[in-house]
Amino acid sequence: MAQRKGNLMTVRDDIKVVDATLRDGGLCNDFRFTEEFVRTLYKANIKCGVDYMEFGYKADPDLFDEADYGPWKFCREEDIRHIVGENISDMKIAVMADVGRCNFRRDFLPKSESVIDMVRVACYIHQIPSAIEMIEHFHTLGYETACNIMAVTQAGGGQIDEALAMLAESSVDVIYLVDSYGALYPENASTLAQTYLAAAERVGKKVGFHAHNNQNLAFANTIDTLSRGVSYLDTTVQGIGRGAGNCATELLLGFLKNPKYNLYSLLTFIERYMIPLRESGVVWGYDLQYMFTGQLNRHPREAMAFTAEGRGDYCEFYKELLDVE
Amino acid sequence: MAQRKGNLMTVRDDIKVVDATLRDGGLCNDFRFTEEFVRTLYKANIKCGVDYMEFGYKADPDLFDEADYGPWKFCREEDIRHIVGENISDMKIAVMADVGRCNFRRDFLPKSESVIDMVRVACYIHQIPSAIEMIEHFHTLGYETACNIMAVTQAGGGQIDEALAMLAESSVDVIYLVDSYGALYPENASTLAQTYLAAAERVGKKVGFHAHNNQNLAFANTIDTLSRGVSYLDTTVQGIGRGAGNCATELLLGFLKNPKYNLYSLLTFIERYMIPLRESGVVWGYDLQYMFTGQLNRHPREAMAFTAEGRGDYCEFYKELLDVE
Repeated sequence: MAQRKGNLMTVRDDIKVVDATLRDGGLCNDFRFTEEFVRTLYKANIKCGVDYMEFGYKADPDLFDEADYGPWKFCREEDIRHIVGENISDMKIAVMADVGRCNFRRDFLPKSESVIDMVRVACYIHQIPSAIEMIEHFHTLGYETACNIMAVTQAGGGQIDEALAMLAESSVDVIYLVDSYGALYPENASTLAQTYLAAAERVGKKVGFHAHNNQNLAFANTIDTLSRGVSYLDTTVQGIGRGAGNCATELLLGFLKNPKYNLYSLLTFIERYMIPLRESGVVWGYDLQYMFTGQLNRHPREAMAFTAEGRGDYCEFYKELLDVE
Repeated sequence: MAQRKGNLMTVRDDIKVVDATLRDGGLCNDFRFTEEFVRTLYKANIKCGVDYMEFGYKADPDLFDEADYGPWKFCREEDIRHIVGENISDMKIAVMADVGRCNFRRDFLPKSESVIDMVRVACYIHQIPSAIEMIEHFHTLGYETACNIMAVTQAGGGQIDEALAMLAESSVDVIYLVDSYGALYPENASTLAQTYLAAAERVGKKVGFHAHNNQNLAFANTIDTLSRGVSYLDTTVQGIGRGAGNCATELLLGFLKNPKYNLYSLLTFIERYMIPLRESGVVWGYDLQYMFTGQLNRHPREAMAFTAEGRGDYCEFYKELLDVE
């Protein structure tokens, strides 16, 4: 077991809090946040000391009908600028681009013409070559880049090392460890984080962590991997996100010792916007059905269907999951 | 950082799962569980492989009016026997005795006449001498004993070492690390666990852990301290317990690798009894007001009042907490 980087009192200036509320939370309501919600979140994030705010996906409008989604599925330059103007704050702006779901050569301006600072490329491990092609394009355009390798808890032996070696040779700035299924425990999250760090730090890259809360471990895994040296930390307000959701920003802000992070500014946003959002019927967060898929290291799709159908027969559902394994 | 005891695949035969559903959960409904609830939980715990089931407190009826509480505040021998008969199962039966709140010389039978196996003595750190007097009495009566030292995250320097040294000289079997305020992170829970283990193992005693979920870390802290060598692990079904509640039994059973532990048997109980209990208006679990008191290492009493009053003004409440600090 490697040593920790700092202790519970250390201010780590390398830490970056990345707010993914609109992006991962948008999966809960088809990205239909009100303009007021988005603008108030933007201001709250700045006051709280959040380092990056991810506005959503840059999905290809040829693949997804714009009538079916709010604007943050597509993150057009004019929609972001409508909220942030020239973004004169210190907070950076990120968007996510999924391999195979965006027209990356057409839909990204050169950084000099865009208010976006970072593009995060999400891919499955077999898509790493495509991800790297996108990363190099974004790098040439002048953006910071991250690569979020999804579903690594199902990756076969050696695959992760191969992927990390390829990314180490690329222009990517940040490599993300992503616990897609909420299957990691702090003990193996730490071990994986150290594998990522070993590959990344050797070539001057950073490592990020994106948790899911299937086993109520999103926050625990986030602070454990950060203690090993991970520095980009994804959170969402009240943990909003698909299925069991993510690491809650308010938990992480309460933990971090850097006085630039300020919990209070977030509470007003929670009280005025997040609690009404939940009361309006948007559903997310830890529940038994997601615990099952996390324990089984499985995609949450069946659990999401269970939720959507309003089912409460947990025993029957658990048996169904075991039957199809 | 000391090594872990085993890894994520290890079966640790020293592990004991202690179900505190009736005892800690009873604080949410004044111990008014139906007889059917208690009997079904007893049977479910046996099927799940739970090692100890705590039925409640042995409170002094001279101090507490029996009309104000259900039977599990007092745990009379005949009430327990009404559920378990002679308890011919392998699961042991525990009760809790609070220092200063029980008439321990009057209200405990000799073990040979009782179906109770273990008495857990709860005390604040300055009450250790009184706790030890009780422990010696219970030991003489023939019971297994545990000592749950509460509120240690507020204990001054040296106090914990002194308490552990005194308990090491006593007849107690298990010393519990208790995170009363849900203020511990896995990193300092581990460190404290190792302090307890060093004091206990030298004299052949075991260490237990009792979590609270104020920062959504109850499960994480439980599996982290267990990985350091803690073996008695308190859980409650769906984490029921005062305020933010405890480590959920279903999370721990899904984690443990010993095939004696069986999650499925618990799911029927959750579906038929716990979900209706919550729907009936019994309130517990992680929420912002408890996160605040956990982050501030404070007793949850103000947060419990906030919940009981049905307040939703989190910002105002947070300011109130900071004002009285």
